[in-house]
Amino acid sequence: MKAVVLLSGGLDSDTAAAVIKAEGFDIHALTVRYGQRHQAEIDAARAVARALGVQAHREIDIDLAAFGASALTTDAPVPKDRPAAGGDDIPSTYVPARNTVFLSLALAWAEALGARDLIIGVNALDYSGYPDCRPQYLAAFERLARLGTKAGVEGTEFRIHAPLLHLTKGLIIRKGIELGLDYSLTHSCYDPGPRGAPCGQCDSCRLRAKGFAEAGVEDPLVRKFS
Amino acid sequence: MKAVVLLSGGLDSDTAAAVIKAEGFDIHALTVRYGQRHQAEIDAARAVARALGVQAHREIDIDLAAFGASALTTDAPVPKDRPAAGGDDIPSTYVPARNTVFLSLALAWAEALGARDLIIGVNALDYSGYPDCRPQYLAAFERLARLGTKAGVEGTEFRIHAPLLHLTKGLIIRKGIELGLDYSLTHSCYDPGPRGAPCGQCDSCRLRAKGFAEAGVEDPLVRKFS
Repeated sequence: MKAVVLLSGGLDSDTAAAVIKAEGFDIHALTVRYGQRHQAEIDAARAVARALGVQAHREIDIDLAAFGASALTTDAPVPKDRPAAGGDDIPSTYVPARNTVFLSLALAWAEALGARDLIIGVNALDYSGYPDCRPQYLAAFERLARLGTKAGVEGTEFRIHAPLLHLTKGLIIRKGIELGLDYSLTHSCYDPGPRGAPCGQCDSCRLRAKGFAEAGVEDPLVRKFS
Repeated sequence: MKAVVLLSGGLDSDTAAAVIKAEGFDIHALTVRYGQRHQAEIDAARAVARALGVQAHREIDIDLAAFGASALTTDAPVPKDRPAAGGDDIPSTYVPARNTVFLSLALAWAEALGARDLIIGVNALDYSGYPDCRPQYLAAFERLARLGTKAGVEGTEFRIHAPLLHLTKGLIIRKGIELGLDYSLTHSCYDPGPRGAPCGQCDSCRLRAKGFAEAGVEDPLVRKFS
């Protein structure tokens, strides 16, 4: 059975893809180049797609930077060493409506393929506080997909799978390691240095470090860039 | 007050923009170049935006043709002289999840601008039978927008305005003429000939002709291309 997987090249989407593959789905990976500042993220997505042996990989360009308003798509500084990643405030790395744009593209491809299943690696536990990572948001998108597509009107019950939704970063990494993932291929940093070296201080780097510490394993990126 | 208007260059979105402008909104027009086959549509959007005196006009490229599955983005033939445009069947010109993609982009821009209002020229009466033109679909998107954005979580009640939703094509055209629109700038045909001449036989041409007939006025495009 075909499934469309949003694959960013990050640790979470890589793991989500591996989980869905282990469930027997044929992965159609979709990477959205949305004007994020780092080619490293796209390179990681390609490496991860190859390693997972996906059935198809599409890269779609969309210039969300034209709308501005995020530290991930503009020259605004990426926040470093925030007191508690996962707190109530929404940081400046939030990209307006990003997951809505991503899921709508995944839905378009899924409908064209005759697929019903969309996979997104969001996580509502160890996350940056983005609203479009919450279960009630995903449920609202399923409803929208049913109402707004030809396939939905004809009876397809689109399903958003978020297999990491309730896992800690540590459990996500343990699961990925069980499934044989090579996390040295992934990229997490919001503000990488030369050759894609992680900054170690942005929310994303800090969540990643916390996850590897919880999982009790060394992050292979540490060795790669040391 | 700022509003983001999806402006295709067609008769409906042109009229919807004029209605919203008359209500006092500052129009931020968004044209999505989604791999449709006709530059004529983009040229029309630019002409219409100029004529309306919009505050800003952005064109965003997104290659929905990469997903295939529509006569509007592939080389499949556009259906001609269908028995009853607006019937129960959904024609091959349906583009998977198109309005979901479009509205998600409008939402991204609206949130970045601090706007609350999104305008789409859909119509549930004289239309091609697309599911993503129905009121229940638009309501589902408003809910999604509230749940999936930082602004929504902070209290912004995003509103989708579909000022043409319950109008016949004839009433849409009468309204536009009252508001001083120049419909010679618009483009409706799914399968235009050289210089953008309408084919006269696709759903969109036939709905347009029906509308002008109901409104009791001549379509200025007829003179333009005769």
